[in-house]
Amino acid sequence: MKAISVLGSTGSIGTQTLEIAEEFPEQFRVVAITAGVNLPLVVKQIKQHNPEVVALAEKSLLPELQETLESLSSQERPPKLPTLVGGVEGLKIAASWENADMVVSGIVGCAGLLPTLAAIRSGKDLVLANKETLIAAAPVVLPELKRSGSRLLPADSEHSAIFQCLQGTPWAENAHLSTGIPTPGLRRIQLTASGGAFRDWSADDLKKATIADATSHPNWSMGRKITVDSATLMNKGLEVIEAHYLFGIDYQQIEIVIHPQSIIHSMIELSDSSVLAQLGWPDMKLPILYCLSWPNRQETPWRRLNLTEIGELTFKSPDTEKYPCMDLAYAAGKAGGTMPAVLNAANEEAVAEFLREKIHFLDIPKVIEKTCEKHKNDLKSNPNLDEVIAIDSWSRQNVKELVSKDKNILTL
Amino acid sequence: MKAISVLGSTGSIGTQTLEIAEEFPEQFRVVAITAGVNLPLVVKQIKQHNPEVVALAEKSLLPELQETLESLSSQERPPKLPTLVGGVEGLKIAASWENADMVVSGIVGCAGLLPTLAAIRSGKDLVLANKETLIAAAPVVLPELKRSGSRLLPADSEHSAIFQCLQGTPWAENAHLSTGIPTPGLRRIQLTASGGAFRDWSADDLKKATIADATSHPNWSMGRKITVDSATLMNKGLEVIEAHYLFGIDYQQIEIVIHPQSIIHSMIELSDSSVLAQLGWPDMKLPILYCLSWPNRQETPWRRLNLTEIGELTFKSPDTEKYPCMDLAYAAGKAGGTMPAVLNAANEEAVAEFLREKIHFLDIPKVIEKTCEKHKNDLKSNPNLDEVIAIDSWSRQNVKELVSKDKNILTL
Repeated sequence: MKAISVLGSTGSIGTQTLEIAEEFPEQFRVVAITAGVNLPLVVKQIKQHNPEVVALAEKSLLPELQETLESLSSQERPPKLPTLVGGVEGLKIAASWENADMVVSGIVGCAGLLPTLAAIRSGKDLVLANKETLIAAAPVVLPELKRSGSRLLPADSEHSAIFQCLQGTPWAENAHLSTGIPTPGLRRIQLTASGGAFRDWSADDLKKATIADATSHPNWSMGRKITVDSATLMNKGLEVIEAHYLFGIDYQQIEIVIHPQSIIHSMIELSDSSVLAQLGWPDMKLPILYCLSWPNRQETPWRRLNLTEIGELTFKSPDTEKYPCMDLAYAAGKAGGTMPAVLNAANEEAVAEFLREKIHFLDIPKVIEKTCEKHKNDLKSNPNLDEVIAIDSWSRQNVKELVSKDKNILTL
Repeated sequence: MKAISVLGSTGSIGTQTLEIAEEFPEQFRVVAITAGVNLPLVVKQIKQHNPEVVALAEKSLLPELQETLESLSSQERPPKLPTLVGGVEGLKIAASWENADMVVSGIVGCAGLLPTLAAIRSGKDLVLANKETLIAAAPVVLPELKRSGSRLLPADSEHSAIFQCLQGTPWAENAHLSTGIPTPGLRRIQLTASGGAFRDWSADDLKKATIADATSHPNWSMGRKITVDSATLMNKGLEVIEAHYLFGIDYQQIEIVIHPQSIIHSMIELSDSSVLAQLGWPDMKLPILYCLSWPNRQETPWRRLNLTEIGELTFKSPDTEKYPCMDLAYAAGKAGGTMPAVLNAANEEAVAEFLREKIHFLDIPKVIEKTCEKHKNDLKSNPNLDEVIAIDSWSRQNVKELVSKDKNILTL
């Protein structure tokens, strides 16, 4: 049985991880959870999973949680109340909890960075769903991974597909160490992209795109922010950067392929020209479960893929004009150092402004490009953690200023 | 560098193996070849590859070969003339040649059985392209494999795909031993089939099928016999039986999927519901090379797969009414013992009669079914090699008799 610490237990990755633990109680036990402000759900999770420690990002909420737990009836109350801890220090305690065998990192944004680093430093294997860990902080994280021997297991469906396909190659050993060591026989990674909400729109039609249009994803049910990232294809651009760091592969060897059915989750091309692919229904649970059970496979009664029912899988090259975010991501990745952090923060802020109806959909790439452009002369190739966090803030601030002042770049 | 013995060097698999050895002279060296009657090609191969031993199935051709080699000019002549051997004993010598690290078994038909068994008994790894080895003689071959530790590496594109996909699973160890041990996490094998020459024909239209129609394959360039097997889908049925023995998987877990583009060469479904696939252009060289370089991968400059150029991959369930040979193969496989040998021999003979214009395309399954039916009461579950060979002959003879006497089952 594996004991798991779940960072961000009330988020999308966290709740799915807990559902898996519930479905396979013989295999997985949740010993630590961390959460933000959703106390009712935290209480429910404590009753269900009986973790040893619970960390709240907001220290001030601890008394309320303590009180609620103590007021539970003897039937509802877990046999032993968990240790409650709070703030960044509390998150770090849960992230490096001694009884945990592995840590699932599902805290969104830079808030996840410190606890994720604490997990890495403790040498535990890390299920990675927090993309900032690699995109913004690779220069900080990669040396730490090397030092501690902690292994990164990717929970994204695309990176999981690559990871699964790489298992059978002679270079599988490097595929989960995030050593940055190039895998000599891995010639190309093909990341598949659904094409998002606007895949059937012309570049011209995008001028009329509304928030409602941008937040309805054809295949995956996800949060609003990430659905917009799908529509701009920035999510795929960010995945390209993650793939670069995870699998030690050059940017020119990473390709994006539009595959509207989202059945092939990604492919690898090996040096002999053979291509391996992983397929499945679009459901995050499978890649999360694979991380938890790796290198084994946990038997499930989950819906089996039926290609004859699907009938056809289609593929086309992405239109770089329609999806400028893709090129921005490649450029930021190639620039390296702090540039991916700037790109990621600028994108988060730009999407937030779009969702607040302050900018148009087509402005998202514009403000990101302006912000990356401005950072060029300040780029640090080997930043420390404080510098990464400072640059993240600067990038967000810059987007806000562009939106409020630089009206002449905006479409609206 | 690996030293290879090539059984059937002038056939399709043999010549492709030699082309690979020629293309990668640092990796592979041909030390032994065996051939039938194509002496000019044998001489060319000797000049090119300078093997240590050459075996001819026809002993009577040895003097002619000896003479031709001795009459070569000093420039054309290899530095040291090969040892020449002949007949079944000669083939066995080449198959178990001491300096060979592995053996490629590409001799078609029952003629390949004895040398293939000799290779297995010598404990060498075997690249399997001779399908009789498993289909007709599994009850004889499997115990020999266990005894000698020789490993079967499948050269068929479908089985190679499965083999490649299995490499990364926790059960990869059993995937090349032909131990018949079930691989617990392998839930399903999906063998893809192009659908052959008649894939777009209705069951009714098949009544008008001619030899020319049946021998033109849409995707693969192959011999006439195997192209007809593609058209009846018997080739897929035979592959189902091979997959059963190779991967120790029950027949109800093996599925055939019509995939007209022949790009996905086969798929495996694992116990967690994840599906892995291997893709490539339709070209036998890649699976042969993979066998030769396994568990490594040999870098090649071969044409890279481009899915955006292909555009779409389609899938449908095969029509069992249109392709009765499929059900015949499943039934023979499930009956086990000598029944697959009967099926295979009856099919070879029926296709030969079809190509001689003695029977109609639609008669092929009829005479096979009649022959299998007749064998039911004589089925041996644990035959020895002599019994396998005798039953193969009986089956061929039975088809001939049906064709000449039992006119009332025939369409023509």
